[in-house]
Amino acid sequence: MELIVYLSGEVHTDWRQQIIEGAEKASLPITFCSAVTDHEASDAAGDILGEESNSFWRDHKSAKVNAIRTRTLIEESDVVVIRFGDKYKQWNAAYDAGYCAALDTPYITLHDDSLIHALKEVDGSAMARAKTPGQVVEVLKYITKS
Amino acid sequence: MELIVYLSGEVHTDWRQQIIEGAEKASLPITFCSAVTDHEASDAAGDILGEESNSFWRDHKSAKVNAIRTRTLIEESDVVVIRFGDKYKQWNAAYDAGYCAALDTPYITLHDDSLIHALKEVDGSAMARAKTPGQVVEVLKYITKS
Amino acid sequence: MELIVYLSGEVHTDWRQQIIEGAEKASLPITFCSAVTDHEASDAAGDILGEESNSFWRDHKSAKVNAIRTRTLIEESDVVVIRFGDKYKQWNAAYDAGYCAALDTPYITLHDDSLIHALKEVDGSAMARAKTPGQVVEVLKYITKS
Amino acid sequence: MELIVYLSGEVHTDWRQQIIEGAEKASLPITFCSAVTDHEASDAAGDILGEESNSFWRDHKSAKVNAIRTRTLIEESDVVVIRFGDKYKQWNAAYDAGYCAALDTPYITLHDDSLIHALKEVDGSAMARAKTPGQVVEVLKYITKS
Amino acid sequence: MELIVYLSGEVHTDWRQQIIEGAEKASLPITFCSAVTDHEASDAAGDILGEESNSFWRDHKSAKVNAIRTRTLIEESDVVVIRFGDKYKQWNAAYDAGYCAALDTPYITLHDDSLIHALKEVDGSAMARAKTPGQVVEVLKYITKS
Amino acid sequence: MELIVYLSGEVHTDWRQQIIEGAEKASLPITFCSAVTDHEASDAAGDILGEESNSFWRDHKSAKVNAIRTRTLIEESDVVVIRFGDKYKQWNAAYDAGYCAALDTPYITLHDDSLIHALKEVDGSAMARAKTPGQVVEVLKYITKS
Amino acid sequence: MELIVYLSGEVHTDWRQQIIEGAEKASLPITFCSAVTDHEASDAAGDILGEESNSFWRDHKSAKVNAIRTRTLIEESDVVVIRFGDKYKQWNAAYDAGYCAALDTPYITLHDDSLIHALKEVDGSAMARAKTPGQVVEVLKYITKS
Amino acid sequence: MELIVYLSGEVHTDWRQQIIEGAEKASLPITFCSAVTDHEASDAAGDILGEESNSFWRDHKSAKVNAIRTRTLIEESDVVVIRFGDKYKQWNAAYDAGYCAALDTPYITLHDDSLIHALKEVDGSAMARAKTPGQVVEVLKYITKS
Repeated sequence: MELIVYLSGEVHTDWRQQIIEGAEKASLPITFCSAVTDHEASDAAGDILGEESNSFWRDHKSAKVNAIRTRTLIEESDVVVIRFGDKYKQWNAAYDAGYCAALDTPYITLHDDSLIHALKEVDGSAMARAKTPGQVVEVLKYITKS
Repeated sequence: MELIVYLSGEVHTDWRQQIIEGAEKASLPITFCSAVTDHEASDAAGDILGEESNSFWRDHKSAKVNAIRTRTLIEESDVVVIRFGDKYKQWNAAYDAGYCAALDTPYITLHDDSLIHALKEVDGSAMARAKTPGQVVEVLKYITKS
Repeated sequence: MELIVYLSGEVHTDWRQQIIEGAEKASLPITFCSAVTDHEASDAAGDILGEESNSFWRDHKSAKVNAIRTRTLIEESDVVVIRFGDKYKQWNAAYDAGYCAALDTPYITLHDDSLIHALKEVDGSAMARAKTPGQVVEVLKYITKS
Repeated sequence: MELIVYLSGEVHTDWRQQIIEGAEKASLPITFCSAVTDHEASDAAGDILGEESNSFWRDHKSAKVNAIRTRTLIEESDVVVIRFGDKYKQWNAAYDAGYCAALDTPYITLHDDSLIHALKEVDGSAMARAKTPGQVVEVLKYITKS
Repeated sequence: MELIVYLSGEVHTDWRQQIIEGAEKASLPITFCSAVTDHEASDAAGDILGEESNSFWRDHKSAKVNAIRTRTLIEESDVVVIRFGDKYKQWNAAYDAGYCAALDTPYITLHDDSLIHALKEVDGSAMARAKTPGQVVEVLKYITKS
Repeated sequence: MELIVYLSGEVHTDWRQQIIEGAEKASLPITFCSAVTDHEASDAAGDILGEESNSFWRDHKSAKVNAIRTRTLIEESDVVVIRFGDKYKQWNAAYDAGYCAALDTPYITLHDDSLIHALKEVDGSAMARAKTPGQVVEVLKYITKS
Repeated sequence: MELIVYLSGEVHTDWRQQIIEGAEKASLPITFCSAVTDHEASDAAGDILGEESNSFWRDHKSAKVNAIRTRTLIEESDVVVIRFGDKYKQWNAAYDAGYCAALDTPYITLHDDSLIHALKEVDGSAMARAKTPGQVVEVLKYITKS
Repeated sequence: MELIVYLSGEVHTDWRQQIIEGAEKASLPITFCSAVTDHEASDAAGDILGEESNSFWRDHKSAKVNAIRTRTLIEESDVVVIRFGDKYKQWNAAYDAGYCAALDTPYITLHDDSLIHALKEVDGSAMARAKTPGQVVEVLKYITKS
């Protein structure tokens, strides 16, 4: 059972790396993917098509260029892992959760206990909620075992 | 052209009321709906089925009972208006945006300029972004004109 | 918010009647529907089209005639309530649960604690699990409140 | 014509093994898959994410972790074989049948004559009903012949 | 339970009339519809848009104009009844059966025993097969009973 | 048979009016709808949400506000009539044709012979092609006849 | 551009062989598939699961076993070629055409001029109509050219 | 991240070649495809099936043969690039845009500033708008970066 797993959300800690390394160590048959996680490059994605003086439209252009990548990858994925950290609004992570829910793509949330109440709708349609990257790796190991 | 419009997001100001009254004043052929906006009742929705000692599962039960209502209404709606205020995480609002995007249900965001950058993905797939409830009413008036 | 609610499962106790009466007493804007619950009529549904000597094919014909009704009603329903009693196999109830899950139609299970473990997959994709018809009425009252 | 065949249902006899060996012996171009069939591991799947004191929620967590695997595999499968034995409730098997029916994934039931009446709805939307694993192999051989 | 029932197939006998009258006599909550059954008008449907000298294109234009009506009606119907008589090719009736099968719209075939073998694929995905219009009425009476 | 018919395309002649009046004269059970056909109002639709100095973004905002209306109406329509005149690019009309084709909504084109070659892909998936509004009325009369 | 092409319909002449050989000669990147075309084996497909005394049910079982194969292959195909000969009812061929139409799978019909009128609905939603296997090969050559 | 990119629209300049060469130079993991871009061959595609004296039907046949190829390719593509030049009506390009919009396939438009107003609906649902083939290559490079 080969899986494509999309890693969504927080870009300021190394949780993606931990999951990818954990999966590699366990030789799991998984291909990982994600948005462009270089924050500055992501914000500037639309500049490729010409610069904008208005910041709303600059963000808009960049968001859409990024969406070509992210929607395509999410739609190809079997499972999505969505990480919420303790900083920033992270509305794009919650947006991805809603997107997965409507597509019926199973997703796993990854967050601390302090965020439980704020994430209750997001967790409500998740298939699992993990506290650590290590737990995510264990779940992936379990669901891909032959 | 009759419309069903779902009002999602922030529950601490009277923006829903302003939109509903503006639409009534203009006699727009619109039926409005929304989640249960009584915060306490919403948090306790799952208690109907028995109390839970563990707060994660209490939230989980309530979130799912609420989702029976909200998913049904969002799926019946023609347009969704999603309000982001300046307090709280409001992940359920961003979740609804992602849900609408995947369903191809057009949505309009309603938020201040200060949130533009944080909401760029959410605005990226919105059909319109308004700053005031009055603007939302004007858009609804325009799109329903005969 | 008007709802169509399909009542699936056990036909030997009056749980349907209790829910319908509870909803009427509370004046809920709900239309209830269900399979033909007269067990003998249901088993004989296929005989309309000619009798069968082979019991497998008699059951087969009847199951399909009943399915014209049940599929149509389940697909029109907003919410499905699925009751599991303590007798019989009730595979059709679990079948309806799987059918709803794949259609993304929210369903509520109704069963005693003694069946928790056996129903874990069925409850796993339910939006709520009630122990009594009264709880189901309370949930319906909550989700339809204006 | 290569097929992916999901084997659902009873875990207490070696019917899966018989089908897989029969298919191998006949060199059929089929990949078989199934849920995790180690009963204890399956019941404990959710424990990876932290233990639960309440048995309902323990089952719930495990059911959902298992569902990440089973839904993904069922949705990728071309044909599903669903086995009903003479013990236990086996509601998950009937649930899988309903799930396949709604997805229009063809499924084959495998059960004794004694269960015919109880399974009439499940057999009603099956594409075939076999009595022995050997018959399933013969059907698979027939439908994959070049 | 109100139903929309589409009556497809043979246009040379009064089977439609028999079903409609039987349903009226029993006060069934059913709306019947069908293609334009006036054979000549149907063949000339495309002439509205200009005459064609080439008979293939005349048929083509007419078939498409008729399809605007028939597809719309079949897609709105809950149940389709498809009649095969003993004359003509009636490929459009079999075409409608395949169309319904792919849409998962339940259909009932109506034909004599002499056509059983020739219609085995068409009957294979039907929900019922009747021999007389009276049987169709009885099935409709059964599935709409309250 | 009641129909909702969307009238798309050219806004500089009175073809919409001719079709609506023809349908009224014949008492056809049809509800007509269309985009906002007041060209200036349509171009200014986005200004409701604040003016834009950059003409690309002004058009963009207006196009999306208009799309809330047009997509909703097209998705609710049973038949779409698409008019191509002899002036302007009219890419939005061809866009609507492609949109209908992908949704499998039947559409009728309305244009002169001089545009046949340029419209061959658009006509290729149309269900009918008319030269005059009167022909469109005749087709609508035919397909709605009881 | 690699294609999967399903060859449906008449089994009494060598048209399948002609198309396959023509495609091979031209080195087209096409994989062909079809139902089991051995008429007797096809009629007996259900006997694998036990013999039936009633001919309706024998046909029924066989039709369903065959449908596991044919539906799976048609749903995987990019293009379907459907051949109508001058003998037999060939309702399964017209059924396949309707099935393809509803799935939006492009199909090409292959038949003599004598069948034009009888096949007008089937041709009406075809993407092409050929008179000879050679023409089908030419069309396939054209649509796969790099 | 491997992509399939369909190149739609104008056939009179070498923009396709520029994009393909740019992608090759950057070693992007992209497979490009398009309609048959030999204008004369495309117009004559239907002649394979017999010549037509009526130019409408000649165009019709050719358009449908071409559509077998183009629909299949567009439905397999992850991203579509649609080029509008300054000559001709190019309705097929706008048609492809509408088709992509309805399928939710992300598309990028490529055109000069002079066409902005005429293309506002087409750009309104595009994910990006480029002015030069080089910009398209840069966007593709960005969205496929690992």
